[in-house]
Amino acid sequence: MNAEIIAVGSEMLTPWRQDTDSLHVTERLNQLGVTVRFKTIVGDRPKDLVDAVRSALRRADVIVTVGGLGPTEDDLTREAVAEALKVGIKRNPELIAHMYTRAAQRRATMSRNNEKQADIIEGAEILENMNGSAPGQMLDTAYAGHRKLVLLLPGPPSELKPMFDEQCMSRLRETLPKRHIATRVLKAALIAESVCDARIAPIYKQLSDIETTILAHLGDIQINLMCSKPALDLAQARVDSLASRIEEELDDLVYSSQGETLEQIVLYYLEMKGATLSVAESCTGGIVSERLTSISGSSRSFVGGAIVYSNELKSEFAGVPPSVLERYGAVSKETAQALAEGIRERCDTTLGVGVTGIAGPSGGTAEKPVGLVYIGVSDSKTTDVVERRFSGDRIRIRAYAAQTALDLVRRKLM
Amino acid sequence: MNAEIIAVGSEMLTPWRQDTDSLHVTERLNQLGVTVRFKTIVGDRPKDLVDAVRSALRRADVIVTVGGLGPTEDDLTREAVAEALKVGIKRNPELIAHMYTRAAQRRATMSRNNEKQADIIEGAEILENMNGSAPGQMLDTAYAGHRKLVLLLPGPPSELKPMFDEQCMSRLRETLPKRHIATRVLKAALIAESVCDARIAPIYKQLSDIETTILAHLGDIQINLMCSKPALDLAQARVDSLASRIEEELDDLVYSSQGETLEQIVLYYLEMKGATLSVAESCTGGIVSERLTSISGSSRSFVGGAIVYSNELKSEFAGVPPSVLERYGAVSKETAQALAEGIRERCDTTLGVGVTGIAGPSGGTAEKPVGLVYIGVSDSKTTDVVERRFSGDRIRIRAYAAQTALDLVRRKLM
Repeated sequence: MNAEIIAVGSEMLTPWRQDTDSLHVTERLNQLGVTVRFKTIVGDRPKDLVDAVRSALRRADVIVTVGGLGPTEDDLTREAVAEALKVGIKRNPELIAHMYTRAAQRRATMSRNNEKQADIIEGAEILENMNGSAPGQMLDTAYAGHRKLVLLLPGPPSELKPMFDEQCMSRLRETLPKRHIATRVLKAALIAESVCDARIAPIYKQLSDIETTILAHLGDIQINLMCSKPALDLAQARVDSLASRIEEELDDLVYSSQGETLEQIVLYYLEMKGATLSVAESCTGGIVSERLTSISGSSRSFVGGAIVYSNELKSEFAGVPPSVLERYGAVSKETAQALAEGIRERCDTTLGVGVTGIAGPSGGTAEKPVGLVYIGVSDSKTTDVVERRFSGDRIRIRAYAAQTALDLVRRKLM
Repeated sequence: MNAEIIAVGSEMLTPWRQDTDSLHVTERLNQLGVTVRFKTIVGDRPKDLVDAVRSALRRADVIVTVGGLGPTEDDLTREAVAEALKVGIKRNPELIAHMYTRAAQRRATMSRNNEKQADIIEGAEILENMNGSAPGQMLDTAYAGHRKLVLLLPGPPSELKPMFDEQCMSRLRETLPKRHIATRVLKAALIAESVCDARIAPIYKQLSDIETTILAHLGDIQINLMCSKPALDLAQARVDSLASRIEEELDDLVYSSQGETLEQIVLYYLEMKGATLSVAESCTGGIVSERLTSISGSSRSFVGGAIVYSNELKSEFAGVPPSVLERYGAVSKETAQALAEGIRERCDTTLGVGVTGIAGPSGGTAEKPVGLVYIGVSDSKTTDVVERRFSGDRIRIRAYAAQTALDLVRRKLM
């Protein structure tokens, strides 16, 4: 079964607002074995709304509208769905009575325009709204000879979520054919998306019943596997089997086999080994520390470190000899090594990390261009230093440097 | 003129990912006087993609597709647009040569599947991609007797944004009818959205020709003003006049009158006063440092500091006396004060900031609950310490703590 979600509201067509309701609806529909094939965001113009609903009726089995059920003149979803389906609307007197009772209980006056929320599309079932005044509606109907389920739901998340979970799920479960969806998320660091795909496409292409999606973001690769079967264990076995084969192919590039973040994995390994970590960051300016401390419980393995943006602080906090800075420069293999060793010693940790580089856009030279980054990882025995030349803007260079630092710690712990 | 944005990628139809690219595109289209009427999010299935493009061609004048231009077999936007328009595609040999040159410069091997990115739709103009391998394409064409502008753009924001700003804007400006839109962005910190709106609504409601939108995100309020007039100076005078009146009402809550970020403003004030700053972060774990160092040139005023996650490091790096930690606890007014004073002294800066608190979800007690945060700001004369009790989850508490720290520095400098 395929679904389309229509998010209604002109504010979501500005540069500043986004639809977020659809994420919850998608999660729940997936649990029912329904795949979301389209999302449409449309404003409050009647013509556009009818167009959006018609397009959805044409291409999806389940249509969920979110928003536009309120009392104002801009709330037109009911009218648009009725017009697209060519059916009528009737004002429900019981609902109006209920609204007045509810307002009286809350000692509020009910303004007349609220009555509009009692307009029910012919043939629709009313979905009670426990957290607001606009009820939802559900239609089990036909369009161009095909069966269609249409749900009209309110926009505020505090109304939408309980309504979907408590009223829609059970109704949909009764109505829809039984399907179960299993998912797996693998993650890999610092491999180009195209290289990753070239390596794993020959594997996942063989299994056409599993939907494989690769996402890449700033040095982080996420491989999503999704499979729908009549029984959950069948679906789970399929995605697990594909996950194993992808892990085998990508080997130690895969840092997570259950969707954990790289910082979670680093902290997990640290704790498993009873190890502690400290970090001296120059060009990343706190990104590595911020990522690690975003995880609750990180203080068990991560003690902290220093942001050594100035040369003085590189010496003051991480004990980099001024002679090293003078001879090799702040951005050098030697400084990265001294940062890693120095911060490890000062913080008395099992591992120490030092990051120094040129994030740009200014500050680069022919010899030391923007994007040049040195990262050192030190333990009691050795210090490994890598040199990287990242391309892109300041955001990208800093993100890649932090990602590389975390991945080097992971590899050191493996 | 009306536009539809089509965001392409199955990952955006999962519960985990959202289209965000369309916000930037919307902002730029609005500046050209183009209104976004629909957004469609569609996956990688060829049939669905063609359907989405056809719907857009039917109902919009400007169609912008984002994503699906990469080298993998899932990247099908080119094919879908060509099929919807019923035109052909040709592989461009110059683009292929350029790709091999680019790969050679970066000492990377170019895998064969990249060549697909050189497929150009008949009649399309090539939009150079300065930050990635997939070029964009722009078509000035007709569909069902109406003129249509179709833009195919890459999905990664680091490629999309510069391409739109540097290549699409000038081309669209030449092509589209002249309209003038003036905008202003005011920003305020740490005021509730509803309180802000209650104070400024009586002002902006009087000026119906200006569109006012208030956005709130983690302690940051953004007030967007937009006005469209036949001449730019007329539109600009209108938004400037409203901006002045809002600034008057909100007074020093407004930190930016031209859309700058709080960290930009803090660095601006520091430089103006010839002052320097250091930070000792516990619960924020590097967010304050990371925000400051995200700005190019921040090293002129921000020297760095320490991530003092463990008690030992609070003493080691910021000189907090162990007796203070023992007597008052790591999360206390006294520790925040000692952190601010100690880091200022150790880093030899004009100002020092100390942040300590309980970010949760664990670690809270009846006396010191999750969300309790102390922030100290110290200069050569005084140290101010504030106590805050933030609600919400770990992300929210850390973000509010960092926002408050930066705003306190701003106020100290004012």
